[in-house]
Amino acid sequence: MNYFFKSSKLAQKFFNGFNRVQINTQSVRHLSQITGNIEIESRKITANYVPLTPISFLERAADVFRDRTSVVFGSSVKYTWESTHSRCLKLASALVQLGISRGNVVATLAPNVPAMQELHFAVPMAGAVICTLNTRLDSSTIADLLKHSEAKIIFVDQHLLQIAQEALSLLSKDKTMKPPILVLIPESENSSPPILETSSSTNVHEYENLLTSGSRNFTIKWPKTEFDPISINYTSGTTSQSKGVVYNHRGAYLNTISTTFLVYGMGSMPTYLWTSPMFHCNGWCMTWGMAAIGGTNVCLRHISAKNIFESISLYKVTHMGAVPTVLNMIANSIPSDRKPFPHKVEILTGGSPPPPHIFSKMEELGFGVTHGYGLTETYGVATSCLWKPEWDSLPLEELVALKARQGVRHLCIEDVEVRDRETMEKVPHDGKTIGEVMLRGNTVMSEYFKDVKATEEAFKGGWFHSGDLAVKHQDGYIEIKDRLKDIIISGGENISSFEVERVLYKHPAVVEASVVARPDDHWGQTPCAFVKLKEGFEEKITSQEIIKFCRDHLPHYMAPRTVIFEDLPKTSTGKVKKFILREKAKALGSLFYTEV
Amino acid sequence: MNYFFKSSKLAQKFFNGFNRVQINTQSVRHLSQITGNIEIESRKITANYVPLTPISFLERAADVFRDRTSVVFGSSVKYTWESTHSRCLKLASALVQLGISRGNVVATLAPNVPAMQELHFAVPMAGAVICTLNTRLDSSTIADLLKHSEAKIIFVDQHLLQIAQEALSLLSKDKTMKPPILVLIPESENSSPPILETSSSTNVHEYENLLTSGSRNFTIKWPKTEFDPISINYTSGTTSQSKGVVYNHRGAYLNTISTTFLVYGMGSMPTYLWTSPMFHCNGWCMTWGMAAIGGTNVCLRHISAKNIFESISLYKVTHMGAVPTVLNMIANSIPSDRKPFPHKVEILTGGSPPPPHIFSKMEELGFGVTHGYGLTETYGVATSCLWKPEWDSLPLEELVALKARQGVRHLCIEDVEVRDRETMEKVPHDGKTIGEVMLRGNTVMSEYFKDVKATEEAFKGGWFHSGDLAVKHQDGYIEIKDRLKDIIISGGENISSFEVERVLYKHPAVVEASVVARPDDHWGQTPCAFVKLKEGFEEKITSQEIIKFCRDHLPHYMAPRTVIFEDLPKTSTGKVKKFILREKAKALGSLFYTEV
Repeated sequence: MNYFFKSSKLAQKFFNGFNRVQINTQSVRHLSQITGNIEIESRKITANYVPLTPISFLERAADVFRDRTSVVFGSSVKYTWESTHSRCLKLASALVQLGISRGNVVATLAPNVPAMQELHFAVPMAGAVICTLNTRLDSSTIADLLKHSEAKIIFVDQHLLQIAQEALSLLSKDKTMKPPILVLIPESENSSPPILETSSSTNVHEYENLLTSGSRNFTIKWPKTEFDPISINYTSGTTSQSKGVVYNHRGAYLNTISTTFLVYGMGSMPTYLWTSPMFHCNGWCMTWGMAAIGGTNVCLRHISAKNIFESISLYKVTHMGAVPTVLNMIANSIPSDRKPFPHKVEILTGGSPPPPHIFSKMEELGFGVTHGYGLTETYGVATSCLWKPEWDSLPLEELVALKARQGVRHLCIEDVEVRDRETMEKVPHDGKTIGEVMLRGNTVMSEYFKDVKATEEAFKGGWFHSGDLAVKHQDGYIEIKDRLKDIIISGGENISSFEVERVLYKHPAVVEASVVARPDDHWGQTPCAFVKLKEGFEEKITSQEIIKFCRDHLPHYMAPRTVIFEDLPKTSTGKVKKFILREKAKALGSLFYTEV
Repeated sequence: MNYFFKSSKLAQKFFNGFNRVQINTQSVRHLSQITGNIEIESRKITANYVPLTPISFLERAADVFRDRTSVVFGSSVKYTWESTHSRCLKLASALVQLGISRGNVVATLAPNVPAMQELHFAVPMAGAVICTLNTRLDSSTIADLLKHSEAKIIFVDQHLLQIAQEALSLLSKDKTMKPPILVLIPESENSSPPILETSSSTNVHEYENLLTSGSRNFTIKWPKTEFDPISINYTSGTTSQSKGVVYNHRGAYLNTISTTFLVYGMGSMPTYLWTSPMFHCNGWCMTWGMAAIGGTNVCLRHISAKNIFESISLYKVTHMGAVPTVLNMIANSIPSDRKPFPHKVEILTGGSPPPPHIFSKMEELGFGVTHGYGLTETYGVATSCLWKPEWDSLPLEELVALKARQGVRHLCIEDVEVRDRETMEKVPHDGKTIGEVMLRGNTVMSEYFKDVKATEEAFKGGWFHSGDLAVKHQDGYIEIKDRLKDIIISGGENISSFEVERVLYKHPAVVEASVVARPDDHWGQTPCAFVKLKEGFEEKITSQEIIKFCRDHLPHYMAPRTVIFEDLPKTSTGKVKKFILREKAKALGSLFYTEV
């Protein structure tokens, strides 16, 4: 026992009633009177040590922000942090009653509805692991992921019931696994649930009924260590099979703090509009973040420009996250869908950097846009383009170029470096030399679930390998140039497919564009562009015209040699499936005409 | 070894070059195919685990905020975060060259000069423990603390050289301990150090020379675990002997984040004026906090209203910390010392709540005042009076009463409760029932250095016992009523000495007042006030007048029965030594006249 105690009886009295904290009491002191060296090891007791976990954020919110609004959703739902806390306790209790035990996986298939926010606390409070599935997946993939994660329960939004039931039906044919219990999340708290076509193998519950069956006096199953898993997030799989990224309580706690305070720059009690999906990286940890700072979650089932402007105006939204598609949606919205709002709304965006006209349109409409970068493996955001006040006065073009960079690491990730993949040396900070983005720190995933080989590969050399190629500028800001698998090497020169795409997007007739490598006998590879044209332009634009446009805006060798007009194949999260385009380009065979 | 690796050779290659992280690889997986239970334990590798330490803040600042100003001091010093980083590496290297090894204690005796800021990083970077002594201590106490802490080096500001040398001279008589090496911090970087009266037993160095002797290529001695000690802070000892409060790296990291973002509400790159001492709780962790958010430390040797206003105006100060004395200094400043500034300056204050007229004067002068609460044992701030927007519209008197409360816990402390000292039950949240403030969480000290008994006492029941008596209001905000040892129990009623003092301060002739218990045969105890009168009032005011004034503003039983006019005895931090007053009151004997 701990050196503080002379008897184990005293120690027992000491810890009486504190079942929350893992007591690690191998406390040893080596106090040398000669050298004066102090070595204090693991002096962890209930009074001064608690495993870090986002559950603490909710406990605090229920006390500190008890009467502030936690969640609003349409006209039917408005909770305070005190009631959210109480509902989550009941839900956690109900989960345990359904047979959930420590370490079990609970899956979800739902958009940004209040139940999703509650499950982000209730599932960990039951000692379980939340696995939020992408709502755009097909039933067969859902069945695969339910099987891989061994989910015991799946919470399904009413609108996704059919696809979930198809998945469960597929699973029920697999005799090695008991299909998960289904809990239906109805359209709204008061709506009557649709009639379920239950099969004998499927156990079905309704969300509010289940919650009501739980007890508010539930004793939270705090994590035994802060490295206990809190969630599994399946990657979207642009290049390969979906992998289950395991998050732990410590990483979730620290990334929440970093994203909330540092990336978003949020103070206390903001109002957050949910336009980025909660199922993706647990909503960039903002599902937990709102509890940390007593914010209000404005839930939104259907994302449209009209809904966004209405919510901003109605709830006085201060912050939101948005993927590039949503930025486009806002910037290109029709005036009748817009509503004025007197304050600035801060938006964090990720993925590909928005083009200049989107940035300036957003500013004009009253939004401040910050560009961030991260991966599912880094709990969402890992870097952001931290803005320096002196940049405000730069001309728009320069300003946008700076804004488009992925920037610098946030507070709680230890290291983000661009390194040579072979030598592991840092690339020079010249804005030119391309290397791979490698990350290290407490906000990097525990592992890929049940995939030792992929985990080993990802952590090679003691760093997480992002698979993203970037340069580091002289000021320390990184800029992503391409995915590792997407870079085109032509005559020994690296061509960033992103940069070619950025030029293609500037062409007035182009809606979507994606560039991959086409094999070339002389140059090794040359850029091949797949382009979707705006309606009405199909007959008017030729590939030669597109190539000429690119040659006017890029070094000659970077311009595509091939242009194919067609719709682009996409993943469930809307990312282009480049591996399909690469296969197509490969099937075209080598180009013979290779004049520069 | 870790399950990731098939051979120890591969593992060795994996960790090659990463001497920073303690590799804890007892990673075990119990994956039951039947229950689907996942138990992932301690999957800590270099890529996803780093012990939390404020050293990381400086490493990041040197990269992210490289060209921003880290420290300004008069006209002679202006560093960037890149140069601060470089200077700290050199200083850490020099410390090791002087013989400092892991766990050694390095003491300081200096006001808020740049060297103090640098030592807060350089000492931990050398693997050592920083012990910042109170600059108001006498030589004999300094000698005692140097001996108790076994300091190997003491950094001394030029203006405190004499007192330090006296302490070292006292120590040199003690043959059981080698006196620490003395490093002189000169008035400014360019000033020539004074001639030192060196004795053979004292090894003397000069700060800049020492720093220059170190190497920029120093390899940081990162903490082996995040529970390694980072500092020792000696308490001021209002009631008993000074105790050495040990902070660890994890607690320092988390309290820095909480105080910076949540209590101060700081965004990126603030400008912080150092009016609260860096030696006290490591400057409420703000010494580390400025690195976390790329802020500028404005150092100040002499604290005066004139200096404060000048610094605010010159450096565009955004935030500062201030003990009540400094608030008084600002509020009561003469107009010629003041300078206008266009922006609001946010001030965090602690200790006794400022009276209404100070609050409103500060607002009028352009300051926003937040009231916080904490102890040396909680790394500085633990709670703050989080402001709710709807309070803005309240009448001044009500607003000030709300502001004066110590408020709610910050993000990273786990629990702050007011509990009955006997039953350990939470007191009802009625704003009336008095209990002791008890705290628990990662930002509570490791221990009292070399004092098992006091540590045991402080952590009794698994909570840190603050020794502060408080009530909890219905809205969850706490309000300190008294120190445990200062409460007066009269006829079974608790009388808060604070409340009586607050009334005394309202009397126009009173400069200072302190109230303690006087024994009483009938009532047990009655309040006894010690009062210092304003100059010129000594002859005019009688004790009966003071008593009457109190009876007009307080319930009868709370008004003092005895008033004694004299100067108040104080500690080195300016707190009243109530134990001396209590002895005096006791010596007066019991009051016989006890009419109510």
